Amino acid sequence: MARPGLILKLSCPDQPGIVAKIASYVAGHRGNLIEFAQFTDKLSLRFFARLEIETGELDVDPEDFIEGFGTLGRSMKAQWHFRRLPYKMRTAVLVTKTDHCLNEILWRAEIGELPVEITSIIGNRDTCRGIAGRAGIPFHLIDMDGDKRSAGFTRIREILAEEKVELAVLARFMQILPDDFCRDFEGRLINIHHSFLPAFIGANPYKQAYERGVKLIGATCHYVTADLDAGPIIEQEVERVQHFHAPNDLVRLGRNCERIALAKGIRYHVHDRTIIDGHRAIVFPD
Amino acid sequence: MARPGLILKLSCPDQPGIVAKIASYVAGHRGNLIEFAQFTDKLSLRFFARLEIETGELDVDPEDFIEGFGTLGRSMKAQWHFRRLPYKMRTAVLVTKTDHCLNEILWRAEIGELPVEITSIIGNRDTCRGIAGRAGIPFHLIDMDGDKRSAGFTRIREILAEEKVELAVLARFMQILPDDFCRDFEGRLINIHHSFLPAFIGANPYKQAYERGVKLIGATCHYVTADLDAGPIIEQEVERVQHFHAPNDLVRLGRNCERIALAKGIRYHVHDRTIIDGHRAIVFPD
Amino acid sequence: MARPGLILKLSCPDQPGIVAKIASYVAGHRGNLIEFAQFTDKLSLRFFARLEIETGELDVDPEDFIEGFGTLGRSMKAQWHFRRLPYKMRTAVLVTKTDHCLNEILWRAEIGELPVEITSIIGNRDTCRGIAGRAGIPFHLIDMDGDKRSAGFTRIREILAEEKVELAVLARFMQILPDDFCRDFEGRLINIHHSFLPAFIGANPYKQAYERGVKLIGATCHYVTADLDAGPIIEQEVERVQHFHAPNDLVRLGRNCERIALAKGIRYHVHDRTIIDGHRAIVFPD
Amino acid sequence: MARPGLILKLSCPDQPGIVAKIASYVAGHRGNLIEFAQFTDKLSLRFFARLEIETGELDVDPEDFIEGFGTLGRSMKAQWHFRRLPYKMRTAVLVTKTDHCLNEILWRAEIGELPVEITSIIGNRDTCRGIAGRAGIPFHLIDMDGDKRSAGFTRIREILAEEKVELAVLARFMQILPDDFCRDFEGRLINIHHSFLPAFIGANPYKQAYERGVKLIGATCHYVTADLDAGPIIEQEVERVQHFHAPNDLVRLGRNCERIALAKGIRYHVHDRTIIDGHRAIVFPD
Repeated sequence: MARPGLILKLSCPDQPGIVAKIASYVAGHRGNLIEFAQFTDKLSLRFFARLEIETGELDVDPEDFIEGFGTLGRSMKAQWHFRRLPYKMRTAVLVTKTDHCLNEILWRAEIGELPVEITSIIGNRDTCRGIAGRAGIPFHLIDMDGDKRSAGFTRIREILAEEKVELAVLARFMQILPDDFCRDFEGRLINIHHSFLPAFIGANPYKQAYERGVKLIGATCHYVTADLDAGPIIEQEVERVQHFHAPNDLVRLGRNCERIALAKGIRYHVHDRTIIDGHRAIVFPD
Repeated sequence: MARPGLILKLSCPDQPGIVAKIASYVAGHRGNLIEFAQFTDKLSLRFFARLEIETGELDVDPEDFIEGFGTLGRSMKAQWHFRRLPYKMRTAVLVTKTDHCLNEILWRAEIGELPVEITSIIGNRDTCRGIAGRAGIPFHLIDMDGDKRSAGFTRIREILAEEKVELAVLARFMQILPDDFCRDFEGRLINIHHSFLPAFIGANPYKQAYERGVKLIGATCHYVTADLDAGPIIEQEVERVQHFHAPNDLVRLGRNCERIALAKGIRYHVHDRTIIDGHRAIVFPD
Repeated sequence: MARPGLILKLSCPDQPGIVAKIASYVAGHRGNLIEFAQFTDKLSLRFFARLEIETGELDVDPEDFIEGFGTLGRSMKAQWHFRRLPYKMRTAVLVTKTDHCLNEILWRAEIGELPVEITSIIGNRDTCRGIAGRAGIPFHLIDMDGDKRSAGFTRIREILAEEKVELAVLARFMQILPDDFCRDFEGRLINIHHSFLPAFIGANPYKQAYERGVKLIGATCHYVTADLDAGPIIEQEVERVQHFHAPNDLVRLGRNCERIALAKGIRYHVHDRTIIDGHRAIVFPD
Repeated sequence: MARPGLILKLSCPDQPGIVAKIASYVAGHRGNLIEFAQFTDKLSLRFFARLEIETGELDVDPEDFIEGFGTLGRSMKAQWHFRRLPYKMRTAVLVTKTDHCLNEILWRAEIGELPVEITSIIGNRDTCRGIAGRAGIPFHLIDMDGDKRSAGFTRIREILAEEKVELAVLARFMQILPDDFCRDFEGRLINIHHSFLPAFIGANPYKQAYERGVKLIGATCHYVTADLDAGPIIEQEVERVQHFHAPNDLVRLGRNCERIALAKGIRYHVHDRTIIDGHRAIVFPD
């Protein structure tokens, strides 16, 4: 991802010759195809693809290349998106008290695993202010208790707008987002749910898991939609547990799942490895 | 398990000196403690244990040893159960069409992994008759379609009684059991559900999993209770899947989970490694 | 795989426009691309691909389509292979005493998971004759003890030739193959090793694993080369173990890994999802 | 672990009545047995146990209780160890350049998952000085290049002695320890090896894994002995990989395994959940 290049994400109705057309367009302008992941959904008859293209040898300017693709894209009735590389996605992290997911994101961003620029950390509790400070990232405390909830969400939306945030990550943010928030940021909101969805939707999933006596616990990284905990799943992790694990043990062990699933999910998103398709997410992992 | 011995399963309110009392009783009669698995539930304050005792050196007859334990057991307000080894549990397998779980059980019984004696195979379809025949096991075809359902279950209960069945395994038996059946055979009915419970309760779990876009599928081996798919979980297995797996791929991959989870679950049960505790099962795996 | 079609496997030096060229050839003759999995090895600069093509609408005879591809293939300095679908690969299974891998293959072939035709079962012990008989498959007992080893392998090669065997599976066949055998059948010999290779090469891997005190055991399905247990790996499975698992417990638990890894490995091979690349195998899983 | 209590670790030759004797001693002095994990190795005929005892109701002083146990322990020819709770183990972390394992330990110590007191961080490179500073932990830079290696280890041993270090963790410390160091700190030195041992001993395990084409990579947390990478294994983790993962992808994915395996391994050690038995470690996980 370090060299100049483009990522193209595309979906369209399945049709003859589609791979040939796209690959020929790229090759015709001397783009170097690094990856061309595709998938044809045989049930919905839709085609999905992600291309990674080195543009060092292009015979036109990248903007021209992108522009020219439009004719082909429209002829295939496609939806598509280009991203120029290298790229860092402007990302806000929303938190409440627990910091393990936040720490994970900060550390992975720092070592270069996540190409994100953390614009700010937004908390409805003050707990994570210190971490933000040590990382040199602005921290916004938003009071959302009781009747300040609605004003709080308005303020958050202002911050996201002011900071030109492209991705908001709910890193154990313990507030249910208003429907209009979810709709307006559709596809740009990622949550980590501390259960193996769709099991244990809602509050206290580890307690629910303990009471149900499951033998594996998990965590789910998903896009947020207005339908609580029902958005498209990006990644899931599980860990084996036994009867002697009390709810607080599940919390402890589950943190491992949460951190890994969230970090992988964010990476897939910022690398444009996900395509949302209704209730599902197509994910081309790396 | 091949040598003469006893398995003791026990549960009681937690209380001081409980391990000392039980172990002293065993040692006092020269029982050789092979395994003494215990667990104290710190939430319910109940104690659970499973002991495996070699009895070759006992200073009394094993029946006398069992009898004598009663005084101690009652003083601790315990529920307990002894089983004499070696032992083969009389087991009936209920099937419909698919045979992978049945085959798994037969093969594991044959190589000695499952100490069961298969009394008969009971099917509401004729599909598995050939397998039963090749294994030299009686096959009962029970017509349960439409209004014959109730009579069918009556007939199944007769067979279980006639054949002195101790354990009935629902090996992808596609019929919902009547409540009284579940109650009467409580703790002696094991099912394999082809999802990672409590996700995807009910019919067509693989189709549900596909539509939800999960990244891991699973199978759950559990005791059957009147509350559908909500009985105590014995074992669970998962397998990673991706967007390109169509529902029939999930069926194919899920079979691996179903076979392993069911086989392990049955083994734990017949080796007395499970103790049902309300909605949960304590399981001491081997 | 049920409809008429073709699978194309190909590898060649990486070069510009390669995906466009191949896809255009297919589309130009009205082949319907069902799957086009590719991989460019950035270290060796080689390109690998597997295409699945429906041929119902081809504008030429499939043989003509295959013939015509040669010009393109040679221009890319590629190695390639076409297979016409539907297809059943003629497969011999070599065994010694243990039958779990053999049973797995037979069962999966029967339910249609493995598109193989089992030509015969070859054993250097008589143990699996009964299984072969029940499945209606010829069984060859080959005495390989002591000085009969060399003659035994000669006889096995005769059988493979007579029965036009395309794939030989070593399903816990406890004999080391002569070098010339490995060379002559390169890429057509699949073995299951009962450890997580490259750990525990050679004899008694479960005993080695026990003594080393590993916390996970495994099994490895790989192509056989003259270099013992060093051939290209197709699939691996692991299972968690603990200190209380004696070597015979590892044998028991390991069987689960062996069966799954071998069955998946064979499936990948017969579906042309593997491409051998020196010591490694490119595998496009399904 | 927060309440006053004791952990007792013990091993001895297997013998009749051993559980009864130990449990009776505890109960006889009104110790409350929270956990009593045991294991009898049927091959070596040795008995291993870990007891967690609440001492709030003891009829004697804990020191007296410990003292009194000696008579019993000696009669059983046991080796044993008591630890008084609550307890924080004085721990030094040795690093070179990479910081993911160090970060993991610091974070887990901070949230209370690891009951350790980090005495200092010792590096043969300066890279982790900043992290140490932010965490308020002393950092020692030890030059070990070329002919300064021997003096470097002498200095490290001085630091460990001055700081009364009980546990030294090699958190991706890229230096091979001298034999006498390993011997003198036997059982108090924990390493994380970035492969699934015993596969890929020595340098560059991810590169080795790539070249061998494995389908799962792993990490191993183990006690350090003079025999490189051959010490008793405490914990192992694996992650599935495919042909398209280049060596640097394995490094990235492997970090997840390394962090989890090391953190669990340290936790088991400081909670006295491990007993070294020759080349193996008995581990009672939580």
